[in-house]
Amino acid sequence: MPAQDTNKSYHTSCTGAALQTADAHTSPSEITFFAACFCPFVQRVWVALEYLGIGYKVRDDFPYEVDPYKKPPALLEVSPKGLVPGLKLETFSPPRGLNESTVILEYLEDLAANTTKRSLLPAASDPYARALVRLQADHINRTLVPSFYRFLQAQETEAQLTAGKEFHSAIEGLVSHFSRAETENVESALGLWREGGEIGWTDVMAGPWLFRATNVLKHYRAFSLPEGPKFEAYLKRLFDHPAFKATCSDEQLYLDSYERYAYNRPNTSQVANAINSGRGLP
Amino acid sequence: MPAQDTNKSYHTSCTGAALQTADAHTSPSEITFFAACFCPFVQRVWVALEYLGIGYKVRDDFPYEVDPYKKPPALLEVSPKGLVPGLKLETFSPPRGLNESTVILEYLEDLAANTTKRSLLPAASDPYARALVRLQADHINRTLVPSFYRFLQAQETEAQLTAGKEFHSAIEGLVSHFSRAETENVESALGLWREGGEIGWTDVMAGPWLFRATNVLKHYRAFSLPEGPKFEAYLKRLFDHPAFKATCSDEQLYLDSYERYAYNRPNTSQVANAINSGRGLP
Repeated sequence: MPAQDTNKSYHTSCTGAALQTADAHTSPSEITFFAACFCPFVQRVWVALEYLGIGYKVRDDFPYEVDPYKKPPALLEVSPKGLVPGLKLETFSPPRGLNESTVILEYLEDLAANTTKRSLLPAASDPYARALVRLQADHINRTLVPSFYRFLQAQETEAQLTAGKEFHSAIEGLVSHFSRAETENVESALGLWREGGEIGWTDVMAGPWLFRATNVLKHYRAFSLPEGPKFEAYLKRLFDHPAFKATCSDEQLYLDSYERYAYNRPNTSQVANAINSGRGLP
Repeated sequence: MPAQDTNKSYHTSCTGAALQTADAHTSPSEITFFAACFCPFVQRVWVALEYLGIGYKVRDDFPYEVDPYKKPPALLEVSPKGLVPGLKLETFSPPRGLNESTVILEYLEDLAANTTKRSLLPAASDPYARALVRLQADHINRTLVPSFYRFLQAQETEAQLTAGKEFHSAIEGLVSHFSRAETENVESALGLWREGGEIGWTDVMAGPWLFRATNVLKHYRAFSLPEGPKFEAYLKRLFDHPAFKATCSDEQLYLDSYERYAYNRPNTSQVANAINSGRGLP
């Protein structure tokens, strides 16, 4: 962690591979994607759009991303709390909006089933495999994600140690979920955890925070993800997957953008405020 | 609220209509339902089982319900945190388990699509309608349900006033979601909110807490749900729906079982502890 807060602010435009992907999505489309370059909830939706092969346009009047702290009316129309990600759907007249990353993922999954026929979930004919994946996602949303922010926002040494252990244990919990699917031989609930597997729902749900653990948490909290060839191979498959890679900016963007979380500056974000006040994420 | 805590404890066996329903589900079945008579998360699953027409057996070695505070090994096998609801699936050998009410609901919905052809969600051919329903459910799970417990567990007058307003506003938020679906003319996202509608995902997700608002919160917090003919007609359709009614015990069971929440007794439940410590629900 830098000796002191250097007052770096969040970036408002992506870089690297993510910039190339955004550049390739400027033509009119029935789906407009309201994004923010550093936001992991946004990245979930972006990976899903890419993998499912659904056409979209990145909202580009704030060079490629909506600045999430200056809520433009266009964003509030599709996302009442002014939070990214959001989708504007011009398949409808007047256009309609959708918000909440998990809800948007379900929407894209359903949409793809009717159009591109690609899927992140196990087949509908296997309700148990789908349930295992939903248990994995439930663990990610209710345990892993909040523990990431508690760790990054913790300021005192003791609090950081405790929160670091909690985050580590949340990752081990995810691995336990994968192990269960292995033991029960439910291959379609393993996503990229399985060598030779394809990206799945859980990889998309967890990927953005696992990625930020390897740069943001490493930089600001000297955090190391669990070691061992199996977990490392999983991360490599995930971070090298074309749909994931296409949505990643260069490392510096994340380090800069998360400094305000690492020093727990006041009013960093609605997410940060919720963590500080002991409330569920917005 | 009674002048003082009378040390009533939770019931371990249901009464009234719920008892009749449990009595009708004692024959062997591929699905064993681990329940607890007063638990709203359990009631969600029970209503879904009833409505979707899926065969099940209620675990009956603790007369009809598992006592959730004395975790029997059989429950821990299907639900690692020892929380009800849980399902034991003997379609598999060895049997498998499922826990988490929202995950079980998805499982039952998927199972019914392959068997009884009944459904609580809008058709898969209408991704937008399904997304509206998932937004409604997200609001219920992340706002309405936690605010119910914060209200019931609040002890000081000021805290009760604040928490009561929050719960009231969470219900108004649900109504806003219904209004949005009405404005956008998405009938299949309205469930029983629409006169002549059939019970839907959102009704099942919210119903158990709306019901407990009319007895538990009324008794212990003098709470009144929003007035007006539209909301009242909705509640009547919901509480009179055969699948919902079949899972309700007599009022006294709820009043007795929730006294420990109303006085915020130590170790009331994992849910109560999570609320007291400002963590997300388990």
